[in-house]
Amino acid sequence: MRILGIDPGYAIVGFGFIDKQGSKVVPVQYGSIQTEAHTDPALRLKTIYEAAVQLIDTYQPEAMAIEKLFFNRNVTTALAVGQARGVLMLAAVQKGLTISEYTPLQVKQAIVGYGKAEKRQVQEMVKMFLRLQAVPKPDDVADALAVAICHAHTATLQHKIDEVTKR
Amino acid sequence: MRILGIDPGYAIVGFGFIDKQGSKVVPVQYGSIQTEAHTDPALRLKTIYEAAVQLIDTYQPEAMAIEKLFFNRNVTTALAVGQARGVLMLAAVQKGLTISEYTPLQVKQAIVGYGKAEKRQVQEMVKMFLRLQAVPKPDDVADALAVAICHAHTATLQHKIDEVTKR
Repeated sequence: MRILGIDPGYAIVGFGFIDKQGSKVVPVQYGSIQTEAHTDPALRLKTIYEAAVQLIDTYQPEAMAIEKLFFNRNVTTALAVGQARGVLMLAAVQKGLTISEYTPLQVKQAIVGYGKAEKRQVQEMVKMFLRLQAVPKPDDVADALAVAICHAHTATLQHKIDEVTKR
Repeated sequence: MRILGIDPGYAIVGFGFIDKQGSKVVPVQYGSIQTEAHTDPALRLKTIYEAAVQLIDTYQPEAMAIEKLFFNRNVTTALAVGQARGVLMLAAVQKGLTISEYTPLQVKQAIVGYGKAEKRQVQEMVKMFLRLQAVPKPDDVADALAVAICHAHTATLQHKIDEVTKR
């Protein structure tokens, strides 16, 4: 199963495609969509949407996992990030992907094993799981891969639960 | 000039098309896009986006005026409304519309003449400006028409300023 992980944002959208092969996860492609500050907000949304559509067309994932953001940050930021998140979800649903949302807490629990893990620990685990030479930069890319791995693990667990339930 | 006014939301998006004819404003079409609660959020965004595209294709406005929302409301609401707002802005920019954003304060000032006007006063002025028999319902529709009229008035004023500056 190919999974697209997304860390949504306005200036930087982190993305990471991984393949789940049994209990292993393998990196396919990762990076970021970046838009210029001081550009028209609607044009930035268009850029984000079109880049997402192109990435999905190129790498053909089945599922999108996206961070559910909260926001000790301020409300204006929430509105802006929401706009970016909206066009990313639209791209995914138009392309027939399943969409799953995970809170930072859920991501940390799935990756490190406990919800209060520090950002740096999550990044190191992402590097280890995907056998990378270095932690991907900027942080948004590592975060995107983290949510993709979170979905892979959660999907595995759900599959096991389903198996047990079926017996 | 044909203007599309939008009051963004998740459950209800109010829309109103008006024509600005000299100093007059004339209603063209107005109503709401509604999505079911308890439906998949991404599918709701798709519904909103597709309805917006269809409305723009049908009524061919040149400009979109959209409410800039704030939010004594909570952050979760801001994120959700941001998502809806994002796909609406995407639809507009893809169709080549200019997009202008107005705060509720700006709308009230443009419609009633002062920023602390009550909702009911704004609605009565909308009814009067557009020579309607009744205030459009739900409130989101009246709000959408209000932001469209706000844009019409602001555009007129900007035009006059430009004229004076050119002399």
